[in-house]
Amino acid sequence: MSRDLYENLADSLTKKGVDVARVEAAIKSFEIETPSWGYGNSGTRFGVFKEPGAARTLHERLQDAAEVHRVTGVCPSVAIHIPWDKVDDFAAVKAEAAALGVRIGAVNPNVFQDKAYKYGSLTNVDPAIRQKAMDAILECVDIMTKVDSRILSLWFADGSNYPGQVDMRKRKRWMQEALAHIHGKLPVGARMLVEYKLFEPGFYHTDICDWGMSLVMCQHSGANAQVLVDLGHHAHGVNIEFIVASLLDEGMLGGFHFNNRKSADDDLTVGSINPFEVFLIFVEIVAAERSGLIKRPIAYMIDQSHIVKQKIEAMIQSVMNIQAAYARALLVDWKALAHARSRNDAVDAERVIQDAYMTDVRPLLEKIRTDMGLEPDPILAFRNSGYLAKIVEERKGELKGAASWG
Amino acid sequence: MSRDLYENLADSLTKKGVDVARVEAAIKSFEIETPSWGYGNSGTRFGVFKEPGAARTLHERLQDAAEVHRVTGVCPSVAIHIPWDKVDDFAAVKAEAAALGVRIGAVNPNVFQDKAYKYGSLTNVDPAIRQKAMDAILECVDIMTKVDSRILSLWFADGSNYPGQVDMRKRKRWMQEALAHIHGKLPVGARMLVEYKLFEPGFYHTDICDWGMSLVMCQHSGANAQVLVDLGHHAHGVNIEFIVASLLDEGMLGGFHFNNRKSADDDLTVGSINPFEVFLIFVEIVAAERSGLIKRPIAYMIDQSHIVKQKIEAMIQSVMNIQAAYARALLVDWKALAHARSRNDAVDAERVIQDAYMTDVRPLLEKIRTDMGLEPDPILAFRNSGYLAKIVEERKGELKGAASWG
Amino acid sequence: MSRDLYENLADSLTKKGVDVARVEAAIKSFEIETPSWGYGNSGTRFGVFKEPGAARTLHERLQDAAEVHRVTGVCPSVAIHIPWDKVDDFAAVKAEAAALGVRIGAVNPNVFQDKAYKYGSLTNVDPAIRQKAMDAILECVDIMTKVDSRILSLWFADGSNYPGQVDMRKRKRWMQEALAHIHGKLPVGARMLVEYKLFEPGFYHTDICDWGMSLVMCQHSGANAQVLVDLGHHAHGVNIEFIVASLLDEGMLGGFHFNNRKSADDDLTVGSINPFEVFLIFVEIVAAERSGLIKRPIAYMIDQSHIVKQKIEAMIQSVMNIQAAYARALLVDWKALAHARSRNDAVDAERVIQDAYMTDVRPLLEKIRTDMGLEPDPILAFRNSGYLAKIVEERKGELKGAASWG
Amino acid sequence: MSRDLYENLADSLTKKGVDVARVEAAIKSFEIETPSWGYGNSGTRFGVFKEPGAARTLHERLQDAAEVHRVTGVCPSVAIHIPWDKVDDFAAVKAEAAALGVRIGAVNPNVFQDKAYKYGSLTNVDPAIRQKAMDAILECVDIMTKVDSRILSLWFADGSNYPGQVDMRKRKRWMQEALAHIHGKLPVGARMLVEYKLFEPGFYHTDICDWGMSLVMCQHSGANAQVLVDLGHHAHGVNIEFIVASLLDEGMLGGFHFNNRKSADDDLTVGSINPFEVFLIFVEIVAAERSGLIKRPIAYMIDQSHIVKQKIEAMIQSVMNIQAAYARALLVDWKALAHARSRNDAVDAERVIQDAYMTDVRPLLEKIRTDMGLEPDPILAFRNSGYLAKIVEERKGELKGAASWG
Repeated sequence: MSRDLYENLADSLTKKGVDVARVEAAIKSFEIETPSWGYGNSGTRFGVFKEPGAARTLHERLQDAAEVHRVTGVCPSVAIHIPWDKVDDFAAVKAEAAALGVRIGAVNPNVFQDKAYKYGSLTNVDPAIRQKAMDAILECVDIMTKVDSRILSLWFADGSNYPGQVDMRKRKRWMQEALAHIHGKLPVGARMLVEYKLFEPGFYHTDICDWGMSLVMCQHSGANAQVLVDLGHHAHGVNIEFIVASLLDEGMLGGFHFNNRKSADDDLTVGSINPFEVFLIFVEIVAAERSGLIKRPIAYMIDQSHIVKQKIEAMIQSVMNIQAAYARALLVDWKALAHARSRNDAVDAERVIQDAYMTDVRPLLEKIRTDMGLEPDPILAFRNSGYLAKIVEERKGELKGAASWG
Repeated sequence: MSRDLYENLADSLTKKGVDVARVEAAIKSFEIETPSWGYGNSGTRFGVFKEPGAARTLHERLQDAAEVHRVTGVCPSVAIHIPWDKVDDFAAVKAEAAALGVRIGAVNPNVFQDKAYKYGSLTNVDPAIRQKAMDAILECVDIMTKVDSRILSLWFADGSNYPGQVDMRKRKRWMQEALAHIHGKLPVGARMLVEYKLFEPGFYHTDICDWGMSLVMCQHSGANAQVLVDLGHHAHGVNIEFIVASLLDEGMLGGFHFNNRKSADDDLTVGSINPFEVFLIFVEIVAAERSGLIKRPIAYMIDQSHIVKQKIEAMIQSVMNIQAAYARALLVDWKALAHARSRNDAVDAERVIQDAYMTDVRPLLEKIRTDMGLEPDPILAFRNSGYLAKIVEERKGELKGAASWG
Repeated sequence: MSRDLYENLADSLTKKGVDVARVEAAIKSFEIETPSWGYGNSGTRFGVFKEPGAARTLHERLQDAAEVHRVTGVCPSVAIHIPWDKVDDFAAVKAEAAALGVRIGAVNPNVFQDKAYKYGSLTNVDPAIRQKAMDAILECVDIMTKVDSRILSLWFADGSNYPGQVDMRKRKRWMQEALAHIHGKLPVGARMLVEYKLFEPGFYHTDICDWGMSLVMCQHSGANAQVLVDLGHHAHGVNIEFIVASLLDEGMLGGFHFNNRKSADDDLTVGSINPFEVFLIFVEIVAAERSGLIKRPIAYMIDQSHIVKQKIEAMIQSVMNIQAAYARALLVDWKALAHARSRNDAVDAERVIQDAYMTDVRPLLEKIRTDMGLEPDPILAFRNSGYLAKIVEERKGELKGAASWG
Repeated sequence: MSRDLYENLADSLTKKGVDVARVEAAIKSFEIETPSWGYGNSGTRFGVFKEPGAARTLHERLQDAAEVHRVTGVCPSVAIHIPWDKVDDFAAVKAEAAALGVRIGAVNPNVFQDKAYKYGSLTNVDPAIRQKAMDAILECVDIMTKVDSRILSLWFADGSNYPGQVDMRKRKRWMQEALAHIHGKLPVGARMLVEYKLFEPGFYHTDICDWGMSLVMCQHSGANAQVLVDLGHHAHGVNIEFIVASLLDEGMLGGFHFNNRKSADDDLTVGSINPFEVFLIFVEIVAAERSGLIKRPIAYMIDQSHIVKQKIEAMIQSVMNIQAAYARALLVDWKALAHARSRNDAVDAERVIQDAYMTDVRPLLEKIRTDMGLEPDPILAFRNSGYLAKIVEERKGELKGAASWG
């Protein structure tokens, strides 16, 4: 780590009025959850390219997540996907995670891959399948208790491919009744986050298609339902940071699924395509924090399915990019911004925003990592650890009962 | 009108189980509101091409609207835009409209053209301008009483062009407080419809950007606020008929601004680019009618700014296309559709939908018009009337005080 | 088939000046190729839902294609995908197809599924993999000779996911050199069609991303290279019929991959989402035919991967929708259209176009089928044939060596 | 200017192997052309908000451009729009510009605002209007000679709003014949750049709609025709840097119209919405420079219509953002990038790209400006100059004969 670069940056920021110690404290306490499914094989409909060393079971996924936490220091929790991560003894998983230095985060019911769900899960026209999906989700609620998870993360592939195929209105009712029922079963202190997505795998309609529909679903459910924003699930041209700001204002922003996209739901590493957008989202979050609007912690979760990048490195890279975006957002000169806005001075407002964005925060992040007893560059730390060679060696062949995305 | 074609169609539909008399009654009672501003000059930012005979004042616009009603028989009301349509004596306007065989429909406050609104109206950072906009809107509420209008139609150009330029969250609050205030001032029995738009003239953010934001605004306002859906105001790939169905289910669909688009907010004549979409929207409406969901009448309004088509003809053509879409939607075999859906048979569901859509309903519409004492083809009726030649002759030069879109 | 409905329609068309016999002859001679891969299982990245009776081998796929041809009468050729359809003896396949009443159409090299192609095929940074892809394609050229195919249909999944990942310019060179080489190996009288696609599976860049890039590749290749237009491979807002018209004008339109989309590359059945667009494409084709611009036959091919529809029915439905679009395009009153255009009368031009489009051509198509010795409704003919029950019974279990999309 | 920050940056870059002197020399010689129309009033179709001091004539626009050049040092040329900038004596203009320290750059014929062009210019169905447009353009060719301009910059609003409205194929022929004719009239050493745009003001089809169509037009014209890329003229999801790379590879990239967009053709200041995209475009340019592909100078031109920003400041801000993007692109470690690409290491490739992008180049740019005898911050230099107060005072009222965008 370059101490000089850090000192220069810190001096420069201090001169601008930034409370550097406070910024560093905020970054140190900012945690990002990684997803178990991001460590396994995945692909597109054109094929899955299996990667040597890709995690095959929850146990291997927890190891990988722990490795990411080891080098980044800010990823202590792991989201799981049921049934992909289903095991017999979840109490043991809790202990296993703890031994690895991590914990289980959000529980994500998967009600899209079983062949029963071809035409939907909670919105299936067949009541038996709706019940099956409900049972699967309530099983996840049980698992939440066993692993001390406070977040039920709900995404549904439910939708249709053709005009006329389904009664969209009836499905809306089924969905909201089911969600209200699930809400009633949540453990004390837990929340359910309702994710939306414009399309895929449904190509004509998706039952929960945008933030408006997620919000309606949460309103029908109850006080512990909030919206989950996945950065890759919007139509082109949509202003995501404004959705974030609006949900914050309504007290309805539960969390994020971070990733990046250029085309559709690309599941690319955060910040790889449009880093400015990630920064602007954090600007809204920091602004809302300053306004005292955030009453319940926002769940910052990564949701990516790495295809061409080494999976663990891709996760680390995303964590680093999220940190960089947040760090820059913490540098915004709010007073100057407010002044520019009061004069409708778009030039100066942009100068304030860009001043924070253009700052090279890497020396700051490296210094923070050193403070935390980490290597300054987590990617290099990972590469130098020998971890990858080890898992490539260990994880040969397919495991019985292993399930995943791809 | 070809009686034979009608007889053949009616026989064919009757054989399929369609209650033709009922369909005809529904079409006859289906009214479409035309907008005063659609009769005046308009254009793009690249220029306004003035059309001979284009209406210059509310009086001329009412004449043109009356002409459209004369040849279509289903357009008895006219939406107005204030201040474009502002006159001294609105009581006289009411009488003038009645004499022409029409009435005033929705009142649309224009709070975007005055130079004060450069940075917003109800969401302007300057409280004096927010008040100015509020006054302008409350003046429209007064006008509603004078002209017996039951609908206040609210669209706001408010937004911003650059990241950082405005405090989006603060503007959201200003907007919802202002709308709640307006709601409290509505005449008895009146509603306010809150329109949304993805972008333009704001290119970075728009304060009311999608149906979710309109819905939130209505929820904060009160029981007489509903959402207005403009067909040209969505991102690409969005399923508008699903939004319509969802709003109907929530009891929050107030009305439509009909037009068509391929690119952005093109304001093209209804059904010119994607006639199937208009049909699918009406399928949802008819389905909701059958379910008893529609408690308050939906306001079917056209919002178009004709550039390359003769304006009155363009309006008539849109009315005809809306009627055709509605007529086809009335032909859907709901029983067969429900059966196909219950089996997840997307092939048969599409066959039911397409059977209605592919039916050539023109003989039916022509017969209905004849029943109503109209010419079967309203475009030809207009062309044969000599009306256009007359207004081209009469409307030469610019009128003092005339205002419009372009 | 309703003789009366046909007679009424024919009379009505004749009165309008349509040469009905000529229209019927055109429709009868209009052939559509179906894809072998459309009869096998497929899915999305979220999963493949296997369908009872789905074809597992080329032999089964040919049977299904023959069934589609049996009930539609216009699908005598079948496109194949290598290696999915690879067999030892292609001479035998030719005979097998002939015995089933069909023939092999376009040969489609699949150079995306083998794990070697993870980072590209003809544009892979590794020369050995580029050579492997070249060999695979030249093997397809050999197969063309064996099965008497005249069309090599080239689509490449080649692209990248991240800015910086690849040298896009170098890959362009590799692609154009490879295509020129392939062009030199084409059998006498054969053509290669170069398909483009905006995105997927590449999410940042695709080596052949749009019609412009396909055109450039064809220009660098030689006289027997033409562009292949897949209806689902464009960005939102793009005018496909204008691309079609422009390629026709350049003599560079080789053929189509028909399907439909609302979101991305949805692979939905033709005409299910936007039937007007299909019609407008055929309007351009008919216009070009009338202008004598079409020197080499356009290859009309379906490319769909059915998920929620029964696969054979979905194919038949697409064929019917294509026929309906073509039939309507044949009804355009070109003289009236030219007249409207000469006056810049967009209202009348649209009336001409809509007059053709709104015509219910189903009685005409039913009559033509009857003339051809077919049942008027191919879907019902298929359902009544017992074919589906038979294949569901026969095709149980997985076959060794069977390969497919899903 | 902070000398220390510069020294630190230079040291750090030098350690990484960057030849800082070479980078500085490249930035100093990198020139950006500003557009005369960017200094005048403009707006959206919803209205034009006039700005105090906005330039009303070519003379005032040249003054403003000279002011931008004075504070940035890299904007010595000014693009003009005819007839907006038409004057009687262009020889005098040349002298006037020289006296102000600038020169005339590209000449842009405006063939869209005259009422004759409502239905097109070079593609109008009326040969007289086609001739009128041709005459207007050839007049611009004459002006080129008078003002020593080497670039004819061609953008056409030509298109249509409705399916059927025009014969798109015939218009393509008219366009290519006209462009070939214009090409033949170009002064020695001059080029014509053919711009494309997806939509607006045409909402159904645009005659030159994408880079493929521009390329075809250039190919039909001759060796001095090249494509002009406007950053705001693409469909959503299109990879502009790949288009740039491909045109460079074909030797067909003539120049840029820089601006930014989130929605459609927003004409926002460069880098305000997606600064990473601008950087990636420059990465491709620098790479092509290194490969010796650039035989004729690329015309770097700004094309913006400022609405909510003070116009001169907006122009300066854009110039600064372009410089920053170019400066960062010059820092790419090409050797490391090539190495990462050769291993298909997308993680490392991104690290190389992001290392350049995340570098805060502002101290470098400030040092360069100081070297050039300029103030380090051109915006502050402008604000401190008193120029704005002066023009606000001087430019009151409307001038006879003044014409502009708005």
